Amino acid sequence: MKESLVNSSKHNVFVNLKNISVSDNFWKPFMERIRTVVIPYQWEALNDRIPNADPSYCMRNFKVAAQMTHKHIDYGVPKDIGHGGMVFQDSDLAKWIESAAYSLVWHPDPSLEKIIDEAIDIVCNAQQDDGYLNTYYIIKGLEKRFTNLRDNHELYCFGHFLEAAAAYYEATGKRKLFDALVRYTDCIDRHIGPEEGKLHGYPGHEIAEMALVRLYEIIKDEKHIKMAKYFIDQRGQKPLYFEEETQKNENGFYWKDSHFQYQYYQAGKPVREQHSAEGHAVRAVYLYSGMADIARLTGDADLLKSCNDLWDNIVNRQMYITGAIGQAEYGESFSYDYDLPNDTIYGETCASIGLAFFARRMASIAPKGNYGDVLEKTLFNGIISGMSLDGKSFFYVNPLEAFPEASLKDRRMRHVKIPRQKWFACACCPPNLARIITSLASYIHSIGKYTLYTHLYISSETKCNLDGTDISLKIETQYPWEEQIDIIFSINERMRFKYAFRIPAWCKKYNISLNGDEASYKLVDGFAVIDREWLAGDKISIFFEMPVSFIRSNPHVRENIGKVAVMRGPVVYCAEEEDNGNELFRLHTGEPESVSIKHEKNLLEGVTTISFTGKREKEWSEDVLYQIEEAATEDRKITLVPYYTWANRKIGEMMVWMNK
Amino acid sequence: MKESLVNSSKHNVFVNLKNISVSDNFWKPFMERIRTVVIPYQWEALNDRIPNADPSYCMRNFKVAAQMTHKHIDYGVPKDIGHGGMVFQDSDLAKWIESAAYSLVWHPDPSLEKIIDEAIDIVCNAQQDDGYLNTYYIIKGLEKRFTNLRDNHELYCFGHFLEAAAAYYEATGKRKLFDALVRYTDCIDRHIGPEEGKLHGYPGHEIAEMALVRLYEIIKDEKHIKMAKYFIDQRGQKPLYFEEETQKNENGFYWKDSHFQYQYYQAGKPVREQHSAEGHAVRAVYLYSGMADIARLTGDADLLKSCNDLWDNIVNRQMYITGAIGQAEYGESFSYDYDLPNDTIYGETCASIGLAFFARRMASIAPKGNYGDVLEKTLFNGIISGMSLDGKSFFYVNPLEAFPEASLKDRRMRHVKIPRQKWFACACCPPNLARIITSLASYIHSIGKYTLYTHLYISSETKCNLDGTDISLKIETQYPWEEQIDIIFSINERMRFKYAFRIPAWCKKYNISLNGDEASYKLVDGFAVIDREWLAGDKISIFFEMPVSFIRSNPHVRENIGKVAVMRGPVVYCAEEEDNGNELFRLHTGEPESVSIKHEKNLLEGVTTISFTGKREKEWSEDVLYQIEEAATEDRKITLVPYYTWANRKIGEMMVWMNK
Repeated sequence: MKESLVNSSKHNVFVNLKNISVSDNFWKPFMERIRTVVIPYQWEALNDRIPNADPSYCMRNFKVAAQMTHKHIDYGVPKDIGHGGMVFQDSDLAKWIESAAYSLVWHPDPSLEKIIDEAIDIVCNAQQDDGYLNTYYIIKGLEKRFTNLRDNHELYCFGHFLEAAAAYYEATGKRKLFDALVRYTDCIDRHIGPEEGKLHGYPGHEIAEMALVRLYEIIKDEKHIKMAKYFIDQRGQKPLYFEEETQKNENGFYWKDSHFQYQYYQAGKPVREQHSAEGHAVRAVYLYSGMADIARLTGDADLLKSCNDLWDNIVNRQMYITGAIGQAEYGESFSYDYDLPNDTIYGETCASIGLAFFARRMASIAPKGNYGDVLEKTLFNGIISGMSLDGKSFFYVNPLEAFPEASLKDRRMRHVKIPRQKWFACACCPPNLARIITSLASYIHSIGKYTLYTHLYISSETKCNLDGTDISLKIETQYPWEEQIDIIFSINERMRFKYAFRIPAWCKKYNISLNGDEASYKLVDGFAVIDREWLAGDKISIFFEMPVSFIRSNPHVRENIGKVAVMRGPVVYCAEEEDNGNELFRLHTGEPESVSIKHEKNLLEGVTTISFTGKREKEWSEDVLYQIEEAATEDRKITLVPYYTWANRKIGEMMVWMNK
Repeated sequence: MKESLVNSSKHNVFVNLKNISVSDNFWKPFMERIRTVVIPYQWEALNDRIPNADPSYCMRNFKVAAQMTHKHIDYGVPKDIGHGGMVFQDSDLAKWIESAAYSLVWHPDPSLEKIIDEAIDIVCNAQQDDGYLNTYYIIKGLEKRFTNLRDNHELYCFGHFLEAAAAYYEATGKRKLFDALVRYTDCIDRHIGPEEGKLHGYPGHEIAEMALVRLYEIIKDEKHIKMAKYFIDQRGQKPLYFEEETQKNENGFYWKDSHFQYQYYQAGKPVREQHSAEGHAVRAVYLYSGMADIARLTGDADLLKSCNDLWDNIVNRQMYITGAIGQAEYGESFSYDYDLPNDTIYGETCASIGLAFFARRMASIAPKGNYGDVLEKTLFNGIISGMSLDGKSFFYVNPLEAFPEASLKDRRMRHVKIPRQKWFACACCPPNLARIITSLASYIHSIGKYTLYTHLYISSETKCNLDGTDISLKIETQYPWEEQIDIIFSINERMRFKYAFRIPAWCKKYNISLNGDEASYKLVDGFAVIDREWLAGDKISIFFEMPVSFIRSNPHVRENIGKVAVMRGPVVYCAEEEDNGNELFRLHTGEPESVSIKHEKNLLEGVTTISFTGKREKEWSEDVLYQIEEAATEDRKITLVPYYTWANRKIGEMMVWMNK
């Protein structure tokens, strides 16, 4: 009998989307905006029906591929029109199907489902007899497939489609796309793997690792763990597959003059020797997510050590206060410890989303408050900053300081586009936003042994099963604007279990009551844990005090010396030109006086603003650059808005870290 | 009778190198280092005799061209070896001849002169019958000449050779190279100009403008003013010559996606419409120098207005405290007003040298202390920082903040090479340094009507003629380390004239005595002017008080808010890791205590260092990136060295602007 790869005694499983109904006043409007604005808009984009935008070619590519595969099929696309758009264009449809599938879970919509089914028909018509399914190579020539795993995103598109197929199957029970992807998985397994005669390769852009684990979680065939594990284990091993592939196929190597070399792809060394985040940030956190999945399933201690180290490195050395990651535009990459420039940052929306994936998977291994803290930080700040409040435009790059003149005239900030853009040639961020927001409910709770964990505070009703007993719980809150959170249980029978809810790291004072009395709890790894026999109607009321906090950076961070950022609860604030005039860098918080908060229902879809009296440096009377002079300041009312809402009014400057 | 272009009533002529003997304890060692180390080293480089360095190909190109031009000549270079190195490689020899020529003025050296004469023989053997003299096109095909004035540096090499020829003629009286260049000038005049049938072009990289004026100053043929004026007047006129040339010759346009477009070459609009410094910084200040020359000679008020505006824009909006200019690595260019990043700066050594050229020419139009102030600032800081103290290695880029790890891992700072490099593929900076330092004496005094001006305080003896009378004056000083300057006149007969000497802008308190008594003087445009009948032996003693000054930037400068730079006299100071440990950004000057200076003869070839007690931010006890925390500091002795000496000891961090 074959030994199982799986050692799953410690699993801590997140409660499925299907079992949670979100009613949150903060998040539900985001979800609805994705459902009603972004998903329909993206469908138009995928079909090249957006006026004045570059075509996506995505659906056209599938139609062309289908016509080439089945001579009788005619979608009315010219036969010789070829492949359009990026090499990874297929993934756009995959992400769209995935997010649309999640939306169907909480908002059934037969007409949307019909559109998806028709798209799936086209996709499946493009599939080859052997299961292969990538329009770039179907159109450009199948003899070239698997010749540039490093750069041509073949396994990336595969991974995204696997995620889409799993999501749609889970949402609807429909198997057509799912079965097609199982066949495609088998096709890849026949071509890539450790056995002689197969290519000893792995994805250039990771995601297939976690997608394969997801497939395993559904059909429980360990060969899918084996594939994911091979992609992870083989990565960075000598002789380096990417080097061999480059030489064999004369692919050229874009990063040959770079400092990161193959670490751009996290492939410069075996993953178990990787302890600090390097290279392309999105690839990195997708890989780390897959590593965490495999470490969880297999109990591989070395792999887990790398995951822990990589997590710590990101969170304690390379993460912005907004949860943005990827400091450098060059290679859209991590740079080095404590290097956190606010203006030339890349901070791709997708990278923060990938960090949320990683956080969720780390929490599945060992629930610690830190994972939920980072998840919450990215969600309330660096992720949703990626989308305008009307859902119609998007940031790829999420700076912590923006100067419109610099974006125009300073090449170092050319990637910092102000305002948000309608769409991108490489349209990865909008659909990625859509998939995380539509599946947000699945980040709230997890179930471990005898324990129910709450990671995020989102008004919702959840039904779950803990060791055989059905439990319902309801969260009611006006988080992040108000301090109270009520959690109400309904359980059919008395049951003893631990309820563990995260005490946010930002919160220094809180009060927890149970059924009106002071609650008794233990603090374990960032969670308050109440261990008792629960009854229907049990109600926990939590007050997380949310003072306006003036936060410092670790003094190793060169860019933030002498500066403070303002937070309230999980929300990072920023100064915008609209409220504070230009040259925001002349503002100083000083010892802020008369700090006040105000909830403004009609501002920016409803936000709590912060005001206080600070200082502003006065102009010099002499028109010179340098002189002996004490800085002269005058009092100035400073008004801050939540960071995620910036650039939703007039184009102007923005600044998170203000001079003290 | 043709009207003269020249309206020279207001000329203020700098005293020629030949008439000044420098004995300065600060500058003479630099001059000697250039003469004894740099000039011999460069000659080896030009002849490809530096081990482990990329070959220059410069002399080889001239030999190949000479062999191709005269079949009987054989320098032993393979016939078909082609052109090597950059398209502008000829200019390296020109700059070398120019600086060697200057050195011959103050240090005759027959063996060096012989080497130059032999090099000139080779150069002249490469000249074509029609006077043309550029090895790139002689070797690659003369039919291609004048087809890419924009990018192929043809007129740039011409300009540099004209400067070299003039310098060598002035130094030695030898005419061979000079006459060859007059013929080359005529050749260019036959091909480029306003007349029908000629190319209506101008240099892509400026310098020919000022070189032609220099030629005019020697042989007084106004056609050379006309040529220079045409290059200036035609620049940026519509239809744009560079556009026409691009289309006609299918040259491609490297800057087509840039924000500056043809302003990279200062050719996006006519020069009289240019009022802020834009584009490639070296090109810009070379152009502005030529414009100043022509404005001075012709009295063109519009041109002068542009020169004044461009000067003010650079000095009051775009110049670093070290005199470095060119903020952006992209295009080695100016960026925009008040944008002065200290770490990603370009600050090319050549650009500061060009700024000195511009300053000297502006002072020739109207002597103002400001020109000498900037000249002094660049010389003591941003220019000589370009060379190591042993004369053996060079900076192209002169940052005001350096972090070795960032230079390796941050693409934005990849151009900031630490330490100085032995040589460059594009070796423009070392020979440019050589030419300004060897000709430094010619920046000290100028003669206007009835007035002798002193712009720089350098120990020296000068003989000059003021309105027919021979005057000698001697400067004795330990500037910039000590505060006293003595100036002693010797004149054969009593003579009344004005002696005007610059009161440095950095100096807030000074004392001037004449023959031991308090002097009576007027302050005019930054000069102290003594108007009297002078006698042999008259002695002026000046004390410029040199306290340690903590300087602020204009609050419009985002990068320097809350920071101070330290100066003493004209010298800008910096903190180095060697004296202050790493993470220099954690230092704060606070209210500096116990500020002291110390002259250290054995440190860095003899410098005055500055020490005081400041603060340093303490490490956090918690290993996190962000928290609510007051900055905790501890007292720390901070030691500063002159900026120009940085990176002459161990590789490490450096910082000019320190947190207050």
